[in-house]
Amino acid sequence: MSNRRTFLKGAAIAAVPLMLDFRRTATSLLSPVVYNADEINFFFDGDRNYTDPEFYSKKLAELTKGAKDQADFYGQGGSVSALEQAFAGITGKEKAIFVPSGTMANQLALKILSGNNTKIFIQETSHIFRDEADAAQSVHGKRLIPLAKGLGNFTLEELKESIDYHNQGEVFKSGIGVISIENPVRRMDGQLFNFDEMKKISAYCKEHGYKLHLDGARLHIASSYSGIPVKDYAACFDTVYISLYKYLGSAGGAILCGDATVIDQIPHWIKVYGGNMFQNWPYALMALQNLKDIEKRLSDTRQKGEEFTALINQSDEFQISKITGGTNVCDLTIRGSIDFKKFNDLLREKGILMGRPAKGTIKTLINETILKRDGLELLKTMKEAYNKAKTA
Amino acid sequence: MSNRRTFLKGAAIAAVPLMLDFRRTATSLLSPVVYNADEINFFFDGDRNYTDPEFYSKKLAELTKGAKDQADFYGQGGSVSALEQAFAGITGKEKAIFVPSGTMANQLALKILSGNNTKIFIQETSHIFRDEADAAQSVHGKRLIPLAKGLGNFTLEELKESIDYHNQGEVFKSGIGVISIENPVRRMDGQLFNFDEMKKISAYCKEHGYKLHLDGARLHIASSYSGIPVKDYAACFDTVYISLYKYLGSAGGAILCGDATVIDQIPHWIKVYGGNMFQNWPYALMALQNLKDIEKRLSDTRQKGEEFTALINQSDEFQISKITGGTNVCDLTIRGSIDFKKFNDLLREKGILMGRPAKGTIKTLINETILKRDGLELLKTMKEAYNKAKTA
Amino acid sequence: MSNRRTFLKGAAIAAVPLMLDFRRTATSLLSPVVYNADEINFFFDGDRNYTDPEFYSKKLAELTKGAKDQADFYGQGGSVSALEQAFAGITGKEKAIFVPSGTMANQLALKILSGNNTKIFIQETSHIFRDEADAAQSVHGKRLIPLAKGLGNFTLEELKESIDYHNQGEVFKSGIGVISIENPVRRMDGQLFNFDEMKKISAYCKEHGYKLHLDGARLHIASSYSGIPVKDYAACFDTVYISLYKYLGSAGGAILCGDATVIDQIPHWIKVYGGNMFQNWPYALMALQNLKDIEKRLSDTRQKGEEFTALINQSDEFQISKITGGTNVCDLTIRGSIDFKKFNDLLREKGILMGRPAKGTIKTLINETILKRDGLELLKTMKEAYNKAKTA
Amino acid sequence: MSNRRTFLKGAAIAAVPLMLDFRRTATSLLSPVVYNADEINFFFDGDRNYTDPEFYSKKLAELTKGAKDQADFYGQGGSVSALEQAFAGITGKEKAIFVPSGTMANQLALKILSGNNTKIFIQETSHIFRDEADAAQSVHGKRLIPLAKGLGNFTLEELKESIDYHNQGEVFKSGIGVISIENPVRRMDGQLFNFDEMKKISAYCKEHGYKLHLDGARLHIASSYSGIPVKDYAACFDTVYISLYKYLGSAGGAILCGDATVIDQIPHWIKVYGGNMFQNWPYALMALQNLKDIEKRLSDTRQKGEEFTALINQSDEFQISKITGGTNVCDLTIRGSIDFKKFNDLLREKGILMGRPAKGTIKTLINETILKRDGLELLKTMKEAYNKAKTA
Repeated sequence: MSNRRTFLKGAAIAAVPLMLDFRRTATSLLSPVVYNADEINFFFDGDRNYTDPEFYSKKLAELTKGAKDQADFYGQGGSVSALEQAFAGITGKEKAIFVPSGTMANQLALKILSGNNTKIFIQETSHIFRDEADAAQSVHGKRLIPLAKGLGNFTLEELKESIDYHNQGEVFKSGIGVISIENPVRRMDGQLFNFDEMKKISAYCKEHGYKLHLDGARLHIASSYSGIPVKDYAACFDTVYISLYKYLGSAGGAILCGDATVIDQIPHWIKVYGGNMFQNWPYALMALQNLKDIEKRLSDTRQKGEEFTALINQSDEFQISKITGGTNVCDLTIRGSIDFKKFNDLLREKGILMGRPAKGTIKTLINETILKRDGLELLKTMKEAYNKAKTA
Repeated sequence: MSNRRTFLKGAAIAAVPLMLDFRRTATSLLSPVVYNADEINFFFDGDRNYTDPEFYSKKLAELTKGAKDQADFYGQGGSVSALEQAFAGITGKEKAIFVPSGTMANQLALKILSGNNTKIFIQETSHIFRDEADAAQSVHGKRLIPLAKGLGNFTLEELKESIDYHNQGEVFKSGIGVISIENPVRRMDGQLFNFDEMKKISAYCKEHGYKLHLDGARLHIASSYSGIPVKDYAACFDTVYISLYKYLGSAGGAILCGDATVIDQIPHWIKVYGGNMFQNWPYALMALQNLKDIEKRLSDTRQKGEEFTALINQSDEFQISKITGGTNVCDLTIRGSIDFKKFNDLLREKGILMGRPAKGTIKTLINETILKRDGLELLKTMKEAYNKAKTA
Repeated sequence: MSNRRTFLKGAAIAAVPLMLDFRRTATSLLSPVVYNADEINFFFDGDRNYTDPEFYSKKLAELTKGAKDQADFYGQGGSVSALEQAFAGITGKEKAIFVPSGTMANQLALKILSGNNTKIFIQETSHIFRDEADAAQSVHGKRLIPLAKGLGNFTLEELKESIDYHNQGEVFKSGIGVISIENPVRRMDGQLFNFDEMKKISAYCKEHGYKLHLDGARLHIASSYSGIPVKDYAACFDTVYISLYKYLGSAGGAILCGDATVIDQIPHWIKVYGGNMFQNWPYALMALQNLKDIEKRLSDTRQKGEEFTALINQSDEFQISKITGGTNVCDLTIRGSIDFKKFNDLLREKGILMGRPAKGTIKTLINETILKRDGLELLKTMKEAYNKAKTA
Repeated sequence: MSNRRTFLKGAAIAAVPLMLDFRRTATSLLSPVVYNADEINFFFDGDRNYTDPEFYSKKLAELTKGAKDQADFYGQGGSVSALEQAFAGITGKEKAIFVPSGTMANQLALKILSGNNTKIFIQETSHIFRDEADAAQSVHGKRLIPLAKGLGNFTLEELKESIDYHNQGEVFKSGIGVISIENPVRRMDGQLFNFDEMKKISAYCKEHGYKLHLDGARLHIASSYSGIPVKDYAACFDTVYISLYKYLGSAGGAILCGDATVIDQIPHWIKVYGGNMFQNWPYALMALQNLKDIEKRLSDTRQKGEEFTALINQSDEFQISKITGGTNVCDLTIRGSIDFKKFNDLLREKGILMGRPAKGTIKTLINETILKRDGLELLKTMKEAYNKAKTA
C-alpha cells in the first residue's frame, strides 16, 4: 500500500493538471503562493492566486458582506443549494448535488448507475481508470474495462467490439453497467472527445439500456474550445460531474448532476463514506460567483490564447503546437540552445510562471491569466528572457 | 433507503447537539443566521456566529492577512499540517490527520484497528452506533455489539461479560476488533465516561490485544468538566477523534490521532472513499486559531456556567438540574405556567436563544457565549421575559 | 480471527443440533461411525448411519441402479432439478434452488431481499445471528438487529417497537430490509415460532413492504409437531430455506425457495462466492429419496416419541420434560445417583446412543431412529443400564 | 445481470474444457450419460463415465466397503483430511485444504495473498480473468490487470513493464498484491506456461515481496507433457490450486495448497461465503483414489496420444496438429469433404465421441480414455466412418 509520504508527494503533484509532464513543476506550485495580481501562469487550470488563503479569504469577505442566506448546514441550504440549482440549470438535469471531491462524484455516479452490474467501459487514459486509487474496484466492486489505450477517444465501433468481446467470450455474465467518458481528457493534454461519436455512443447506450457518465471535471473548457454548449454535452449522459476548482476558483469540491432518482440517493452514500461536512459554503460561494461569467471568461481566454499562439509562431525564438482536437494545452518549443532554469527564473521575476521543459519542449497551459497582459508585451518579455538565457 | 428530504431534515437536526430533545430547535438553527456579537445561545456547542459566512469570512481574512505558508494542497502543508502537529501534541500521539467528517474519522479508525476482525463493542447510545447510517456494517463489514443500552457508561465487567457471551456462545469466531468509547456521550446529555473505568478497560484491552478507539468529538468539554487532561484521556486509546466544529468554531472537519502505523494508512482510504479535498485550510485555519485558548475558554465557560446555575437555582422562577457525571448539558425547569413561545421570542429580542421546552423543561447547553454577559443581568432578562410570558 | 483448530472444533460441534448443551457429545459423533442398522441415537437430527460413507454409498448405488437423467452439471438438470421442483411444490413457491450450505441459503436470501437496505430484524437466538460467523455484516454489509434476547419467539408488538425505536431514534435512515424468523429455533431446544404471531407479522410486513425470510432448516419437524403444513408456513414468507441434511439424510446441501425474481438471481451469487460445484447429485439424490415419505416418517416419529415419553414418565427411574411449544428436543432427568459414563457405555453396547448429562439432565432429541425398536423394550434396556450404573 | 437461463447454459458449457471451440459439444455432454466402459471421448478432461451417477456410486460403494475413518464432518477428518495431506505432500506445501470449487480456491488465494493491495497481474486469457464472473472485482475488491492479451504466456519483461507502467504512471498507489499464472491455459488450447520464465518471474516476485498464485486446475496434465514435476511447479508459488474433477474423476471440488499462515485463514472465509458443507467425502474419496496412479496414467495417456497422433498423421484422411508448448489439446483436420454429422454419429455408435468441427477442424482433447483401445483399431474405425461419410 501507499505510505503517507508517497501519497502526499502524489497528492501535491495531482494538483498539477498534467501530471506526467508537469511533475517537476509541482515544487513551484507547493512553494509559498504569494499573491500577485498580475501573475500569469502557464501550467495551472486557472489563476494561482485562488490557492492563496489571503486572496481567497478577502474574496469570501467581499462575497459575504451584508449578504444573507448563504450558510448551509450539512450541504443543505444557502450557497450550496443555490450552486446546485445553478448547475442543474446549466446542465439541463433535474438535480445537482455538491460533493467534496471529483473522485466521490465519479465513483458514486458509477456505483448508482451500475447497480449490481459489474462492468464499466472507460478510456484507459481517464482519471477514473488511473487516478482514483482503484476506488471503483476496491470500494465499489466494479470491473473497469479500458478502451483506447493511450488515446483520448474511442469510437462507437470500438465500444461495441469490446462489449461483444465480453458478451460473447465470457460465459458468466456479470452485467454491463456504465460507459464512462472523460471530456476533455486530462492525461491526453486536454484532448476533446469527438462530439459526433459521443452522440452516437449515447444513442447506442440508450437503445441498449446502458448508462452513461461524463467525467466533465473541465467541461467548461471543452465547451469553449469545441463550441458545443455544456447542456448539449450533458444531454448525452445520465450523470455529469464538473469540478469546482479547475475553472471556478473554488478551494475544492465537485458537482454531480443527473435525474432526481439518481441524485436523491447520493446523500446517503456521502454520509456512509464520510464526506458529509458540516458547512460547505466556503467552496460553494466562490464557485457560484465565478460561474456567472465563466462562458465569456473562457471564450475570451481561448481567443486570446489563439492570438498569442499566432504571435508566438511568427517569432524566430518560439513555436507553439498542440494535438488535434485539443483544448488549452500545448507544447512550447524553444529554438536554439538556452539555459532553461535561467529562462524560467527571469520570467518568474516578471510574474510569468512557466513549466519546466522536457526534451526542449515546455508543456504549456493557456488559462484566464493570459487575459491580464497584452500579447505583444508578453512575447517581448519572453524574448528578452530568451536572449539573456541563450547559451550559444 | 433514506430519501433526500428525510436526509436533509436529519442533517440539519444533527447540527443540534442533542438530537432527540432539540429536534424542534432545528428550525431556529436553520433560519438565517444573522451576525450578533452579543448573542448568547443555549443549545449549540459554541457561538452560532461561526456559522455565519460573513463573520467567518472576516475572521479568515484577519487570520490570513500578511500570513504565509497557510495553504495546503490536498491536505498537505500549510495550516492543515500545522493543525495536525498541534493535535498530535495535545493528544500525545505520534501523528494526527485532518479528515472531512467525524463519521470518516470514526469509521476509518474502526476499520484500520480491527483489520479482519468483525466484532466491535460500543455504547448503544453512541454516535457510531446510532448516527452514522450503519456505515460500520454496510461500508466496512463490521458487527457492532452494543453495550449499556440507554446509558452513557459501561463497566469493564459488562464488557468482559459481553466478550465472554460471544466467545463462549458462538462457535465460529470472527474476531474481536475494537472497543469504542464515546466521551462525553452526546445522546446522554453529554454524560462523561467514568475515567477509572476507562483506565481499567484500557488496561484489560492492552492485555488481550484488543484495540481501543475514542470518539472524543467533544473531548475538550469532557476535559474541562472532569479535570482530566485531554492527553490523559488519549493515553487510554489507540486512536482519538476530535471534532473541529463543536468547540473549535471551524465550518467542518475532524482530526484523528494515533500511532504512525495507523495514521499513515488513512490518506489512502480518504482518497478511495472520496474525501480527499483540494484545499482544506478554510477549516484548519479557524480550528488552529481557536485551539490556542480552548482550555482556558472552556474552563471559564464551565465556571461561569456553575455560577449562573447557582444564581438560577436561587431564583423563584427557574431551576437547573443535570445528570450525574454530566458536562455542559442541563435541564431548565420553569415554575408556574408560561407561554413558552412568548418567553422564547422575548429572549430572542434580547439576543438570547433558548431551546424549546418538552414537558415544561428546556434542554439547555452551556457554551462559551455565556461569557458574553454578566450572570445577574442575564437572570434579570430571563425574569422579565418570564413575567411577561406568565399565563396564570 | 478464528484459527483453523478453533474452527474445526467448532465445525464438528456444529453437527450436533444443540451446540451448547451437546458440546461434549461431539467426540462421540466424530468417533468412527460404524454402520449399525439397529442403532438408536438421542442427539442427532436423524439416523447417524447416513453419515457413514459405506451406508451412504450403498444407498446411492441402489438409487442410481439402472436410473437415467440423474446427473446434474453445475447444479443444472438431473436429480438437482428434480429436487428443486419438488421443493417448489412442497413450499408452494415459484422456484427453488440447491445451494451448498444453509449459511449460503440464508445469507443470499437476506442479501437479495434487502437490496440496499441495511437493517435486518432477527431472533437473538437464531443461527443467522450467532452461528454464521458474522457473514451478514462482514460479507453482505447488513446490520442485524436482534429481537427477544435468549428467547425463541418475538411478537409483532416487539417487532413494531424495535422498528419504531430505530425509525424514530435514528436520524440517518439506512433502510429496513428483512425480518427473518428461524422456526424451529435450534438454540432454544427446537422451540416452535407461534404460528398466529407469524401470520400477524407476515401481514404487517406485507403492508409495510418489508420482506420476510424463513430459516426453516428443520421446517419439517416444526410442521410435524405443530400440525401446520409446510406450505402454510411458507406462505407467510418471501423466501424459505430448508436443510437437506437435518431430516433428509443428505450428506450436505440446502434448498432456498421463493419467487422467480429472487431465485433467478441466486446462480450469479453462488458463482461469485465460489459455491458453484461441478456435480451435486450425490446430495440431491439422497434428499429426493427421503423427501418421499418425510411427512409420514416424522409424524410416526412424533407419535412414537410421545408414547415413549409417556412410558418413561411412568417409570421410577426417568423423567422427560420439554419446553412449551417445543418439538423433538427434551430433557431426560435421571432420578437417584448413577455413574453416567457407565450408563452411557452400557447403552452404547446395546446400540443406544445418549448425550452426556449436564447437571443431572441429558438433553435428548427424538428422531426417526426411535421407530426401530419397541418402546417397552427400549425402556427395559434403559432400566437395566440404570440399575447397573447406580451408585447409591 | 445474468438471468438464470443464460447462467445455466453457461454452466453446462463450462463443463467442456475449451469453451469457445467446444461450445456446440455441450449438448452431447448434457445428453443422458449412459455408462459405457469402452467409451472413448475426445473433448472431456477424463472419462465421461465419472459423470454418470450409477458408475460413480458403484465406485464409491467399492471404495467404502469395509473401510473406516472415511467420513468428514464439515471438511474435517476422514478422506477429506487424507486428501489434504496427500496434496500437501504432492505440492511440497505446508498445508492443503478442500474447497467446493476452483473459483473459491482461486479467489480466496488472491484475497488472502493480496491483503489490502488491490492490483493483481494475470493472463488476459485466464479463467480468473474471464470465467469467474468478475468475482475478484465484485466480491473481493481487486483490480485485475491483464497481461499478454490473447496469449497463454507472458514474460518477466512484460510483467516488469506492466508493473512499471502502473507504478510510474499512477500517482495514487493502491498496492501490488499478487501475480497469478494459469498453467496450462484452458482458453489457449491447454498451452503450457514456459517453466524458465516462470522461475524467473518467481525469483523476481520473491525479491520484490509480490505474492504468486498458480491456477493449476489441470496441473498434472501440464506436468505430464512438460516433464516438470508438480512439486517443481508448486515451488515457484505461494499458493497452488488443483481441480478434483478435471483429471481426478471427482464429482466436484478443489484443493488449495500453501503455507499454514495462508491455509489456516481459509476455513473462516469458506464459512462466511457459504461454502462450508456438512460432508465432503463423496468428492474427496474419489479424488484420493484416482490420485494414486495419476502420474503413470497421464504419462501413459501422453505417450499413447503421441503414438496415435503419429498414426493419424501417416493417414491420408486425417491430420493432427497442435500449438507450440501445448499439452493434450489438438486440432484434427479432415481431408476432403465429409458429412460431419454422419461421421460423428457413426463414431458414436462405436463408442467414440468427437467434438463438432469448426471450419473443417475438430478441436480434440486426448485423455485417458484413449488407453482403452488399440491405436490402429481406433484409426481403422475412424477411417470406416470417414469413408461412409464422404460426400464427394
